[in-house]
Amino acid sequence: MDKPLVGILMGSDSDLPVMQKVAEVLTQLGIPWEMDISSAHRLPEKTADYARTARERGIEVLVCGAGMAAHLAGVVASHTTLPVIGVPLKSGELAGLDALYSTVQMPPGIPVATVAINGGKNAGYLAASILSIKRPELAESLVRFREATRKELEARSSELQTEIRKNRQG
Amino acid sequence: MDKPLVGILMGSDSDLPVMQKVAEVLTQLGIPWEMDISSAHRLPEKTADYARTARERGIEVLVCGAGMAAHLAGVVASHTTLPVIGVPLKSGELAGLDALYSTVQMPPGIPVATVAINGGKNAGYLAASILSIKRPELAESLVRFREATRKELEARSSELQTEIRKNRQG
Amino acid sequence: MDKPLVGILMGSDSDLPVMQKVAEVLTQLGIPWEMDISSAHRLPEKTADYARTARERGIEVLVCGAGMAAHLAGVVASHTTLPVIGVPLKSGELAGLDALYSTVQMPPGIPVATVAINGGKNAGYLAASILSIKRPELAESLVRFREATRKELEARSSELQTEIRKNRQG
Amino acid sequence: MDKPLVGILMGSDSDLPVMQKVAEVLTQLGIPWEMDISSAHRLPEKTADYARTARERGIEVLVCGAGMAAHLAGVVASHTTLPVIGVPLKSGELAGLDALYSTVQMPPGIPVATVAINGGKNAGYLAASILSIKRPELAESLVRFREATRKELEARSSELQTEIRKNRQG
Amino acid sequence: MDKPLVGILMGSDSDLPVMQKVAEVLTQLGIPWEMDISSAHRLPEKTADYARTARERGIEVLVCGAGMAAHLAGVVASHTTLPVIGVPLKSGELAGLDALYSTVQMPPGIPVATVAINGGKNAGYLAASILSIKRPELAESLVRFREATRKELEARSSELQTEIRKNRQG
Amino acid sequence: MDKPLVGILMGSDSDLPVMQKVAEVLTQLGIPWEMDISSAHRLPEKTADYARTARERGIEVLVCGAGMAAHLAGVVASHTTLPVIGVPLKSGELAGLDALYSTVQMPPGIPVATVAINGGKNAGYLAASILSIKRPELAESLVRFREATRKELEARSSELQTEIRKNRQG
Amino acid sequence: MDKPLVGILMGSDSDLPVMQKVAEVLTQLGIPWEMDISSAHRLPEKTADYARTARERGIEVLVCGAGMAAHLAGVVASHTTLPVIGVPLKSGELAGLDALYSTVQMPPGIPVATVAINGGKNAGYLAASILSIKRPELAESLVRFREATRKELEARSSELQTEIRKNRQG
Amino acid sequence: MDKPLVGILMGSDSDLPVMQKVAEVLTQLGIPWEMDISSAHRLPEKTADYARTARERGIEVLVCGAGMAAHLAGVVASHTTLPVIGVPLKSGELAGLDALYSTVQMPPGIPVATVAINGGKNAGYLAASILSIKRPELAESLVRFREATRKELEARSSELQTEIRKNRQG
Repeated sequence: MDKPLVGILMGSDSDLPVMQKVAEVLTQLGIPWEMDISSAHRLPEKTADYARTARERGIEVLVCGAGMAAHLAGVVASHTTLPVIGVPLKSGELAGLDALYSTVQMPPGIPVATVAINGGKNAGYLAASILSIKRPELAESLVRFREATRKELEARSSELQTEIRKNRQG
Repeated sequence: MDKPLVGILMGSDSDLPVMQKVAEVLTQLGIPWEMDISSAHRLPEKTADYARTARERGIEVLVCGAGMAAHLAGVVASHTTLPVIGVPLKSGELAGLDALYSTVQMPPGIPVATVAINGGKNAGYLAASILSIKRPELAESLVRFREATRKELEARSSELQTEIRKNRQG
Repeated sequence: MDKPLVGILMGSDSDLPVMQKVAEVLTQLGIPWEMDISSAHRLPEKTADYARTARERGIEVLVCGAGMAAHLAGVVASHTTLPVIGVPLKSGELAGLDALYSTVQMPPGIPVATVAINGGKNAGYLAASILSIKRPELAESLVRFREATRKELEARSSELQTEIRKNRQG
Repeated sequence: MDKPLVGILMGSDSDLPVMQKVAEVLTQLGIPWEMDISSAHRLPEKTADYARTARERGIEVLVCGAGMAAHLAGVVASHTTLPVIGVPLKSGELAGLDALYSTVQMPPGIPVATVAINGGKNAGYLAASILSIKRPELAESLVRFREATRKELEARSSELQTEIRKNRQG
Repeated sequence: MDKPLVGILMGSDSDLPVMQKVAEVLTQLGIPWEMDISSAHRLPEKTADYARTARERGIEVLVCGAGMAAHLAGVVASHTTLPVIGVPLKSGELAGLDALYSTVQMPPGIPVATVAINGGKNAGYLAASILSIKRPELAESLVRFREATRKELEARSSELQTEIRKNRQG
Repeated sequence: MDKPLVGILMGSDSDLPVMQKVAEVLTQLGIPWEMDISSAHRLPEKTADYARTARERGIEVLVCGAGMAAHLAGVVASHTTLPVIGVPLKSGELAGLDALYSTVQMPPGIPVATVAINGGKNAGYLAASILSIKRPELAESLVRFREATRKELEARSSELQTEIRKNRQG
Repeated sequence: MDKPLVGILMGSDSDLPVMQKVAEVLTQLGIPWEMDISSAHRLPEKTADYARTARERGIEVLVCGAGMAAHLAGVVASHTTLPVIGVPLKSGELAGLDALYSTVQMPPGIPVATVAINGGKNAGYLAASILSIKRPELAESLVRFREATRKELEARSSELQTEIRKNRQG
Repeated sequence: MDKPLVGILMGSDSDLPVMQKVAEVLTQLGIPWEMDISSAHRLPEKTADYARTARERGIEVLVCGAGMAAHLAGVVASHTTLPVIGVPLKSGELAGLDALYSTVQMPPGIPVATVAINGGKNAGYLAASILSIKRPELAESLVRFREATRKELEARSSELQTEIRKNRQG
């Protein structure tokens, strides 16, 4: 496998089900990635080191997922000037709203590109969009993916029409 | 001025005070930009055309600001595979929470990189981070900006210490 | 079946369970309808075309259901001057509140007639109310439906009284 | 003036600033209206009578504005099968969220077509959309209004471009 | 059974599980009650008549439970000067928050005494408190109930202490 | 003045502007009241004593106003079996939502009759409703008050009609 | 067992599953504790006595858990100057948000140290942090616990790397 | 002045108005403090160093104030085992709710003792409570402060009674 372009971090291994979707989307689009568990609070030095060395190791986009008072994406962003995507995770009792606010409401100077609560897939697509600004073939892959999505939706639309016709005749 | 790399769109000219900060940050960092008013609802064709032609016109990042049921960033993202940054704007009675949800909670496949409510500055810095993955000199500018921010904060810290000492002696 | 008067659109086939209730109510009231899957983000051109041609095809009311950052109703409304009813759907983690805000908080000029979260039935009754302004027989059907509802509720009230009496005597 | 087609009701005369915008939009579009103060709670009989007799008096759409535990639109809808548009008004401490929930979350059978908090203008445009299904000339007026809105937005876009050019040259 | 002092109303028979607890508490305290299904929206005349005649029929407190845009308590309160207790019911997607706002945020002049979401029991105890201002024996019953509650809680406290001691010795 | 029937408590003298409205309504209706500042947290013993002795001193209804984590009404209710009305006050940053939840969401056994945020007036009317169950003349006063409210609203309705006619002729 | 340093109180025995975690953490760290059921509303005198005598009985930190309109921590804090930790518990329909606001939004003068909704574990660690200011050996235990947490997280990180490598080779 | 026992940190000098109240309360109680500006995101190393060395420098309690996605208290807590008090600050558009969630919803293992939004004063009193567990004279100061608060409230209560009597006689 090629040298990773995207670094995926999560605060706990219970975050894996959502964060694996980031990796799946990247793999589908042929983008090499690495993935690790770190934590803004329990492994602050490892997290800071990871963020500080990411660019020199060839990483171009970071994706961070965390729940509750989700500080991971913000802490990572404070140690790198690479684009950092934050995935607020549902965990605890507040449906992920705590994680959304803790991720998106960053103060001026240290932005986090936030996606939907549990939005692992979109974090993958957003990373691909970012990488596509220097890789025309990736832009084409994204166009092909969208075309496939369209086809799939159109197929479902046709199925629905068939089903409706049947019900009406039946 | 060089060919714009960032396209800034807003839904109404009342959004200008926040969206101008995107342009100010980009100008500070030497990144050429263009800015226009369009609207997902009132100028849907213009908006779609703008998004569809952005990549071929040399734009690499799009920044969209809108309030209330803020559809602009999502609609733009549906017509391009470039990275789209959404700025939820406070307008109307719900403190921008409606715009935040309408911007960040995008369904899988069409991501919007969302920043804080009224987060014009961070939209600029996020655009710069994205552009920096193919422009090492921009990465350096971002490092210098952070350094300057640090210095400024340290200066304020010193002033505070001086003031505290004075009050204690006084 | 007659030419459809109501066009029902949904963003994904997972929205079918709620949106089918719109069709059921319309069928009960003898109002012809059509139903399709489209998506503001994944099939923007199809969505725009559908909306733009609806009036000339004889459609008089459009009903759109979508979840999360629900843009479907707003995008449809931007391409037609027909009345557009929006059904915010629960999907994702925010209990449909994101869809409610994204549907109801439309900026001035492009209204969406919003019903309750997952309010498929009421979307059907609202469509019928709208159609009734030019069809007196439909107004009568609605009155008969309300009468039936009243009777049903009164029957349940009687059952409850009987049950209470039994319990007291028992 | 012609016989009113739209009946505008509000719960208190403090609601006039928002509800007057409904009337202004209707007047602009040449739609005759009537307007009155009633209250679901303080004038329940008047409110019920008004709703019950609306259709026979030639009214085709009702628009109701109320704040806090806003029951007016729901109560009116329970006494008529005409389409009822609800305008949740900001009043009290909860930014109109109480009025939004009290208006939009109607139980099955009695729908209210809800617009944005303080969305007086859109209530007017929605009423016009509904009336347009039996009045082709009104559909054309709405198209002309949208065209005018587009032109206005395009003019502002041009002004912005001029201003940006000036600033860059200056 | 004696003539009812408390009238319990609910908007639908699906509200019975919560509203039955009102009756259970009243029965425990020896307070006669009546219970019926009515609906602010589907049976507005019955609801109004019920409220208007309640005082002359000997009812002293009304308890109304409804979900979503819960108008029942407010509509009842607008037709009587008896104290009306509102029980906001969880139903639909918003966890009862819509019912809470629709019940408690009543405009000046028509109060509803609101208890917790699904707070059937407390509606019963509140009704008893109100009735106790003219029935000293009921005040005593309430004191005895509180004493019993205290005893029960103290028993559980003792059990917990025993269990803790066992665990420590074990 | 007669012996007070209603005891009005507030947590701080900054709550006076809202709580004075309780007294004004009671005075209007001829109901004697007493008013004091106490605090669930800063004067817990005084608060408990006040509540415990209220019934024997002839008080029949207690009205408690407090902001933020508003415990006053709940604490008072835990020391008396008299009906306790809670007025959640806006204070601090959360628009009174904290006070609303802290007042209305009481656990089973200790109810608080909650009115709207800053709902001083309705606390007064609710107290009067409660007192009216043993004082027919108060029930009549409440009916007269409602009649006056109706007249006033009808007068405003007439004024509005006059104004509309003028504008149309002018 | 040594004399307890931490007193754990809960409003009901249904709160035990969360509050037991406080005790587990303390036991792990070798801190003696006591635990009891009391209630701000149902056992106000016991609760006040417990709080008032805590310091003289050798207790140094109090931990209080309650749900809904959670008054327990605030009431305890009003009767002692010891540090009081509040654990807002999820119970009822509002996901613990009511308990969070009722616990954290204390008015000036009577603070409650609030942890996350259902945050029993962190209440234990916070109590240990507080006790550590006079017990150096406890500070060391806390450092060892954090070290163990780090090791555990690093082990999971290694496992994840192994699994990723396997998947890639497989 | 003595060696500081409390370290007060804030993320920006715009937080000074609230955080100064922490210092004022401590000064009133005779507790030496230090105060500095640092930032979890803009000065991460300084923040980490400050937290890591706090205990050995004699600090016993840390108080951290930050707004929006308020990470300061959490980041500080991850680098020390001293008790950390978090003050969520209102800043930006969400009334401090973002800061509250970002501060209080800490994941297990790294607690933050959270006080009310903008609760600077209570942070001071909480710090004093914590320090009082090893300083009996501070416990006495706190008791005296509470006594003074009580007296002040009682004085205001007397003034209110006087005013009421005057109004009644006048």
